[in-house]
Amino acid sequence: MKFFCNSRALLYGISIVQKAVSSKSTLPILKGIYIKAFDQNLRLITTDMELGIDHIMDANVIEKGSVVVDARLFGEIIRRLPDSEVEISLKDNSELLIRCGPIKFNILSYNPSEFPELPKIKEEQVYEISQKLFKDMIRQTIFATAEDETRPILTGALIEIEKNMLNMVALDGYRVALRKGKIESQTDNKVVIPGKTLNEVNRIMSGEEDEKVKISLTSNHALFTIDNTKLISRLLEGEFINYNQIIPKEFKSKVKIETEQLLDGIERASLLGREGHNNLVKFTIKDDEITIDSSSELGNAHEKIGIELEGEDLQIAFNSRYLIDALRVIDDDIIYLEFTTNLSPGIIKPSTNDNIIYLVLPVRLASY
Amino acid sequence: MKFFCNSRALLYGISIVQKAVSSKSTLPILKGIYIKAFDQNLRLITTDMELGIDHIMDANVIEKGSVVVDARLFGEIIRRLPDSEVEISLKDNSELLIRCGPIKFNILSYNPSEFPELPKIKEEQVYEISQKLFKDMIRQTIFATAEDETRPILTGALIEIEKNMLNMVALDGYRVALRKGKIESQTDNKVVIPGKTLNEVNRIMSGEEDEKVKISLTSNHALFTIDNTKLISRLLEGEFINYNQIIPKEFKSKVKIETEQLLDGIERASLLGREGHNNLVKFTIKDDEITIDSSSELGNAHEKIGIELEGEDLQIAFNSRYLIDALRVIDDDIIYLEFTTNLSPGIIKPSTNDNIIYLVLPVRLASY
Repeated sequence: MKFFCNSRALLYGISIVQKAVSSKSTLPILKGIYIKAFDQNLRLITTDMELGIDHIMDANVIEKGSVVVDARLFGEIIRRLPDSEVEISLKDNSELLIRCGPIKFNILSYNPSEFPELPKIKEEQVYEISQKLFKDMIRQTIFATAEDETRPILTGALIEIEKNMLNMVALDGYRVALRKGKIESQTDNKVVIPGKTLNEVNRIMSGEEDEKVKISLTSNHALFTIDNTKLISRLLEGEFINYNQIIPKEFKSKVKIETEQLLDGIERASLLGREGHNNLVKFTIKDDEITIDSSSELGNAHEKIGIELEGEDLQIAFNSRYLIDALRVIDDDIIYLEFTTNLSPGIIKPSTNDNIIYLVLPVRLASY
Repeated sequence: MKFFCNSRALLYGISIVQKAVSSKSTLPILKGIYIKAFDQNLRLITTDMELGIDHIMDANVIEKGSVVVDARLFGEIIRRLPDSEVEISLKDNSELLIRCGPIKFNILSYNPSEFPELPKIKEEQVYEISQKLFKDMIRQTIFATAEDETRPILTGALIEIEKNMLNMVALDGYRVALRKGKIESQTDNKVVIPGKTLNEVNRIMSGEEDEKVKISLTSNHALFTIDNTKLISRLLEGEFINYNQIIPKEFKSKVKIETEQLLDGIERASLLGREGHNNLVKFTIKDDEITIDSSSELGNAHEKIGIELEGEDLQIAFNSRYLIDALRVIDDDIIYLEFTTNLSPGIIKPSTNDNIIYLVLPVRLASY
């Protein structure tokens, strides 16, 4: 194997694939990047057996072949080379020689035949969606996936394709994030994608309005194709919670409020709800004001924000973190809050975008 | 106590003093900021009993008085207020009331009479030096202080004032950093300042050429005055190593080389000297080239850089970290390296600045 390429182009390729390198695997070869030189192309592949990333780039290939090298070391070496042509070749089938002008590295390599093959995906159920929209969808839901692994299915997000709409849903037992978007679809589908995969898809997409990401779904895998990069991910198995049943269709109080004012107020209040109180913030909604209260052994916070209220007065309490997570990813300046009672879920909706709904469970207080 | 001030100005004051707040003290009041309102001023004081910081700012004082509040909580609250006027007052001598438009915080306060007084410094031996120069001196030496506390005096830097020169010296047993600078002085002096203090002085100085820092020295303390801020630090006790004896006056090999080329080369080589090898890099100096070599179980690195050599050929090895630390803070494009034998210290000097000298001990190799 022998090829020439530009050091910066190679570094970019490495940065694309390195997030699927296994950090804790007992299989040493999974810490590597599989490099294949063929025709005038270079193919870089990594996998942690859950997610695989496959990136193709240009190279001046003199002799075809393949090799596996430690991803961290190879990446650091290439990063520290000047911006110029690099020559990479395999010596005695065991050492990789990296040469860049007067600079020369020899590093140990693994046997490429031991590197696991990525699953072959039959591209039958294929969808296309704008990268900008898909990035928004991920950003606006992914934070609501569960962090702990006791219910693995909740560490992923549901992708539900139905009648030319894609619904992305994340929930963790305390809150739900639902984001809808238009998609052209021949077939309906319903899969749960690991949160890590969606984060990597998000990272790799440029987010241009007119660039597309192609999504292929099988019963076990999802394949995301972004330009010259393919991400192949296992799906999470199991039944996702029927989120539609949880989201209330009616309300008794509807509050219109400025997103940033509410976010700032809750963030301030959260400074005094931290210790031993589950980040508790209390809302008192009455007439044309919402009062935000919090307290801890260190003191208390109190502030009022002007609102438009339709319906009944209400006192209700929340874990501030769940509200903050949702308010931070809403792009609208004005939102609606909808409540039924202080024991039933609160709803947050942007005022001009029907495709986004957040639900947060309230915290029951001893005294109102 | 009651005063008004702008939230951003107060935040700036808090950011100045908060680095002397004790993070691990058993004395809870040392986690606080002492705030004193008097005349039309606010005084903010913090101390960890080694370093004290005292900052004065403008305020509209309605009622004089003093209070101590938790520095972290107070700082976070002020940081999250809008940029506008804040009213701060003491209620029942125990609660601090912070009010900013519709926003209100009540936080617990400590009794200010329990806050330790900062040492009174007699300003008799006083020196002035440009902030820009003093910043350079700190940046170019402080990294060579010892990190471990087995010899406490080496965790500080020597400040030696002699015949209108200030010498700042840091050393840790493996390397020496010496930086000289002009100063107007009536009296000679020699003190060892804790590294932490110099880092804080560095952080607070603007670094303007025509701004001065005033340094007052007593037998136990140093006082640094920077505009409206005073830093009062204990001195480190003990005898500092006689660094002059260590620095060789002669050499057998003198190498002229581009700083950045050498730094890049050593940083690349260090990628392969890391594991189990003390970050070892080997230099082979011969004719008009230096060859940099390193190796580990993962592979090896090898590169050549053009030099001008005066004197003898040489092979010598170093811990790359010590060389990198020094080369990163040299502003000159060209440096000189001076060597005697491969068992005696190597010297690094900028080519156009006689006021900076780095010494690094070599690593003895089994085979040359």
